[in-house]
Amino acid sequence: MSLSEHINWNSDGLVAAIAQDWQSGEVLMMAWMNAEALQLTLIEQRAIYYSRSREKHWRKGEQSGNVQQLKELRLDCDGDTVLLKVEQLGGIACHTGRRNCFYRLADAIGELSITDEVLREPDDMYGDNKQ
Amino acid sequence: MSLSEHINWNSDGLVAAIAQDWQSGEVLMMAWMNAEALQLTLIEQRAIYYSRSREKHWRKGEQSGNVQQLKELRLDCDGDTVLLKVEQLGGIACHTGRRNCFYRLADAIGELSITDEVLREPDDMYGDNKQ
Repeated sequence: MSLSEHINWNSDGLVAAIAQDWQSGEVLMMAWMNAEALQLTLIEQRAIYYSRSREKHWRKGEQSGNVQQLKELRLDCDGDTVLLKVEQLGGIACHTGRRNCFYRLADAIGELSITDEVLREPDDMYGDNKQ
Repeated sequence: MSLSEHINWNSDGLVAAIAQDWQSGEVLMMAWMNAEALQLTLIEQRAIYYSRSREKHWRKGEQSGNVQQLKELRLDCDGDTVLLKVEQLGGIACHTGRRNCFYRLADAIGELSITDEVLREPDDMYGDNKQ
């Protein structure tokens, strides 16, 4: 039975993918994979996601250089989420230029504050084309 | 603007929620929240999710005692995922009785192996009613 057959694909044929820094444990981002993206991730040993807006897979870091090298891939109990332990090249996972995507902290009443600085300007990473 | 207004709710009115151990950084599980579950999570300072199968919210650990006390709640850049940093009471997040839900490790060709042991039998935690 292949990995794909163990996955409980959603109605769009996707599985949620959490990327975590393999050393610090920092949760970097959450994105989606279709069967092709998952297969390519294993073959190329780097994170490859599926873009729901652009309807195609994309190699994380292809433009920015912020590649996620795969160290470990895990599947959860009900098969609808994979956990990627990765080495985040460049130290930036977020398209906003921050270390990770979870830079907005909610207080007890739900007010948000930004806790992480932009390390590199998106225009510098992507020009006009973000990913 | 309330937290709920910052969230990019999906077509089912849900946001993905990742629970992470606030001290070890271990990713414990991924589940879903609707607006009510998110609001209750902030009010009660414990993880409360929405069950898509049962179509209602549920207080994590209500039956098992494996409550997730909220330490921090973060929102990602595009507003479709929240990260909960929690204290996992009982040391068991998964309904299978394991520490976390990501106990299946894929090798390079996608073969899965189980890496974590059952710490407590589900029947002991839930009787016939798992959550």
